[in-house]
Amino acid sequence: MTQTEASSASSAAQPPVPSTGPDGSGQGTVRGRSVVPGVVYAPVTWVTERPELPEPTETVPEDRRDSEFEAFTAAVDTVADRLAARSHNVDGHARQVLEATVAIARDRAWARKVKKSVAAGQTAVYAVRQATEDFIVMFRKAGGVMAERVTDLADVRDRVIAELRGEPEPGIPQVDSPHVLLADDLAPADTATLDPDLIVAVVTEKGGATSHTAIIARQLDIPCVVATGPALQTVTEGTAVVVDGGEGTVETGVDPEEARSRVDAAARFSEKVRSWTGPAQTSDGQRVQLLANVQDGVTAEQAAASVAEGIGLFRTELCFLSETSEPSVDQQAERYAEVFRAFPEGKVVVRTLDAGSDKPVPFVNAEDEDNPALGVRGLRIARGNTQLLERQLDGISRGLELSGRTSSTAQTWVMAPMVATVYEAKWFAQLCHERGLTAGAMIEVPAAALMAEKIMSYLDFVSIGTNDLTQYTMAADRLSSSLAYLTDPWQPAVLHLVHTTCRAGSVTRTAVGVCGEAAADPLLACVLTGLGVNSLSAATPALAAVGAQLGEVDFVTCRNMAAAALNAEGAEEARTAAAAVIGR
Amino acid sequence: MTQTEASSASSAAQPPVPSTGPDGSGQGTVRGRSVVPGVVYAPVTWVTERPELPEPTETVPEDRRDSEFEAFTAAVDTVADRLAARSHNVDGHARQVLEATVAIARDRAWARKVKKSVAAGQTAVYAVRQATEDFIVMFRKAGGVMAERVTDLADVRDRVIAELRGEPEPGIPQVDSPHVLLADDLAPADTATLDPDLIVAVVTEKGGATSHTAIIARQLDIPCVVATGPALQTVTEGTAVVVDGGEGTVETGVDPEEARSRVDAAARFSEKVRSWTGPAQTSDGQRVQLLANVQDGVTAEQAAASVAEGIGLFRTELCFLSETSEPSVDQQAERYAEVFRAFPEGKVVVRTLDAGSDKPVPFVNAEDEDNPALGVRGLRIARGNTQLLERQLDGISRGLELSGRTSSTAQTWVMAPMVATVYEAKWFAQLCHERGLTAGAMIEVPAAALMAEKIMSYLDFVSIGTNDLTQYTMAADRLSSSLAYLTDPWQPAVLHLVHTTCRAGSVTRTAVGVCGEAAADPLLACVLTGLGVNSLSAATPALAAVGAQLGEVDFVTCRNMAAAALNAEGAEEARTAAAAVIGR
Repeated sequence: MTQTEASSASSAAQPPVPSTGPDGSGQGTVRGRSVVPGVVYAPVTWVTERPELPEPTETVPEDRRDSEFEAFTAAVDTVADRLAARSHNVDGHARQVLEATVAIARDRAWARKVKKSVAAGQTAVYAVRQATEDFIVMFRKAGGVMAERVTDLADVRDRVIAELRGEPEPGIPQVDSPHVLLADDLAPADTATLDPDLIVAVVTEKGGATSHTAIIARQLDIPCVVATGPALQTVTEGTAVVVDGGEGTVETGVDPEEARSRVDAAARFSEKVRSWTGPAQTSDGQRVQLLANVQDGVTAEQAAASVAEGIGLFRTELCFLSETSEPSVDQQAERYAEVFRAFPEGKVVVRTLDAGSDKPVPFVNAEDEDNPALGVRGLRIARGNTQLLERQLDGISRGLELSGRTSSTAQTWVMAPMVATVYEAKWFAQLCHERGLTAGAMIEVPAAALMAEKIMSYLDFVSIGTNDLTQYTMAADRLSSSLAYLTDPWQPAVLHLVHTTCRAGSVTRTAVGVCGEAAADPLLACVLTGLGVNSLSAATPALAAVGAQLGEVDFVTCRNMAAAALNAEGAEEARTAAAAVIGR
Repeated sequence: MTQTEASSASSAAQPPVPSTGPDGSGQGTVRGRSVVPGVVYAPVTWVTERPELPEPTETVPEDRRDSEFEAFTAAVDTVADRLAARSHNVDGHARQVLEATVAIARDRAWARKVKKSVAAGQTAVYAVRQATEDFIVMFRKAGGVMAERVTDLADVRDRVIAELRGEPEPGIPQVDSPHVLLADDLAPADTATLDPDLIVAVVTEKGGATSHTAIIARQLDIPCVVATGPALQTVTEGTAVVVDGGEGTVETGVDPEEARSRVDAAARFSEKVRSWTGPAQTSDGQRVQLLANVQDGVTAEQAAASVAEGIGLFRTELCFLSETSEPSVDQQAERYAEVFRAFPEGKVVVRTLDAGSDKPVPFVNAEDEDNPALGVRGLRIARGNTQLLERQLDGISRGLELSGRTSSTAQTWVMAPMVATVYEAKWFAQLCHERGLTAGAMIEVPAAALMAEKIMSYLDFVSIGTNDLTQYTMAADRLSSSLAYLTDPWQPAVLHLVHTTCRAGSVTRTAVGVCGEAAADPLLACVLTGLGVNSLSAATPALAAVGAQLGEVDFVTCRNMAAAALNAEGAEEARTAAAAVIGR
């Protein structure tokens, strides 16, 4: 039913955009990043367009400048009051967002800038644009949290300009029946007042997994897809679409009956997920360990209270990122023990420091690198600073003692990120084994997958990090939204490397886990199981859906799904082929 | 004889530095980047250390400030006169370099800065340091060619400071017998006066293939290795070493007799290379096409005058890099025709625009990317700008007409860089085939190698780009000197992907070439031939050595070398294992 990459690429005049239908039938699939799972079928409504930004005009005569500024003040008051009124109707994060937006609208430095420009003869609308741009430049330069406020700033600007011009308020249009909301990107103030009875799904062209849109959609638990790119614009106002938040798709032209049956099936599956308690196994009893990705004591405790059987990825960066110098062995031990205490029994897989790339740690990563994702990160840092790694391993050992996690049923495994060569694996294993720790490696560099059998001869286990493995295998930055069509763990090339790793695991009798985003995708989890993966580790909230899905298929079906996906020409076709095996 | 990575990594207390011997015997191999081939055996001499930079001191009393500045002027005169005198004894590039350095020493803006600081009470040495630092910051910011002058600036600073303090002139020490010169990095003024009778090889910790050191070493044809990293510091003054410029190694502790026999063998091989005229084939007649990498008409003509049978990689970036907007189809055609005219017959492989990463083209690459090497580069640019690619293909077609390169013996092949998916290959092939052009793809993204068989079903040929393929397979920036131990085309993981590609080529009867650095390494060329590669393309000067080496082995030996390398645990071991097959 869905447009495959194949049919898209079949038109030579068309660039190889895999996610839009090139045949003009209006039927097609727009693909983005999955944020909140769930399937809905409803007509779309686009957010009301933001006003066109004003161009500079002739100088305003002096006698009209005061009234021009008064108009600005009045517009700001209207906008701020309206937002403030809405903030009283909501709670929690939504309220904070609205209050923050009101604060921006009432910002005195911004008003002063506008006043100064108006006094110099600019129109109020142009002065608003100029003043905001100055702040945007400043915020962008500041980076980090400040840069994230740029959307809020632009939102206030647009509301005030629309008000000044007497145009409709930009943002969510009034609808009186359930709709799917489409937008370039949602302003926080928009998302804050979303009514989940009327807006049943949200899809945005931009944004990421941590954008305001994503946060609010999770809070309201409405299906959400972000980062579709400009392909979303082919979906016109009022078109009925099927949004599959878990798959990250928006489909047009779906037969209404089929659409409704998919919504029903999804609802039934959601019901199963809610009541699923584990442990995970296929319908014929092939066990797969379901583990959680955590980063501190709090997330470990959430995992312990869930269906997770243990921790498959304990990211230790947080312990370092929050410090200005290296934490001592004792400080580290204390932080690690917080996680160990959450799981007194069962498996906990600790990943040693993966500083670098998008997670630079100032006292560890010194240099400015041209391509930090291809730079001195992960285990490579320890090459020039063995003591840093040794102290961390000591910290882990001491954390185990502190937490009393020493029973024979407690398995603590330690793995290195970014292993690329057999020598690195051998060296890391020796450092761990000297301390009585079980040693493993992340398989996230293509070379590590290709050399898996030799690497495993020195290690006790491996865990495939599909996010980075996909990034490097496709040579595409996983944080780049323009390359999202490449960085898809369904890419058959990536599945081939998973397959190679699993075969090596089978030959050498080494446990092979997966701890990337791929493990959170119920359909892909079946494929991974079919390829021979023994454990899946993902964010806690994703685990039940994976477990419930695995319980619906037998192992031979998983293997057939794997074979179908491996044999595909592209990611989209792999997904479709695997789904077809189970009649989807 | 050489220390392998294995023995290095065997000591747990040691970081996995593959290139230094951990056993303290003083015998070991330091590995860097090969610049000029050739083997020599001689004691080393380190360049005279640069003076320690002065720290700020107490204010100079006013009555001594004039004499402080006079001392500066005198020192500058001495340094500049000395360099100018040397410039009269040399020609060409060396003379230009020395004259440029003299010009820097006599720069008035620099002297003014020093004068101002001295007038304010600083010592002359400190004023020199400060003034130079200001310029260095400025030059670095300017980037490009200006940034490359930073070494010259620092050189002038150090000479003047040494002179002011009465310390020996930094740079090449006086030696009266042949020595290998070791340095952190060589200043242009040093390299300019190298006497190739006394300095028989140069090895530097820093620098790259295009540094001054590399340029001068090529000009003087003395073996040269750069970018060894700090490991070079383990080689102490006076130690006898074997430098193998082709392998990029510096070995200590080699038995003198063995060392001399290696020097002799290398000399005999050089003799063969000089007299080798092609065409390339193994001793039992297995043909391998030897082709040249070129970028314009000039380099194409150099190739035509050499042993090259054709062009294996015509990089078209130069045609775009020198422009401020996209060249028209006619302008492109004219530039391409210059290359086509150099080879009226035989093969010419044109690679379409590979803008992006380290070769950004302003009017093509808009965004600032976090990881440009993993960004929108190569064929990906055409995804959002198909017309750019179509105009280039039209330019190539028209260039063929202009050059009259239409005979049936003239094969013109066109390939796309950075192909990552089957769809991209299919789409590119269609655009080429519509214009009657033979279509191929670079195999430089791991995914393309893994999907080679499916990709080949749409293409007429492929060419493996080992530089980028290594970069992505190892997830290590190929321009980062701290990761040079990973970005080695001898990495078995990379050879596995070459193998996969060749097997796919054999199944689908598709020609597989190699056009990366790997093709320039005579030993590796045998391995590639054994893996099933049909053609090798490298810089023109490297071809004869590759051809001569291939003539010394039969095809079964090539296959045995390939098997030995594939089975190795690491790059160093792969090289050693392949060499052992032919008794080296």
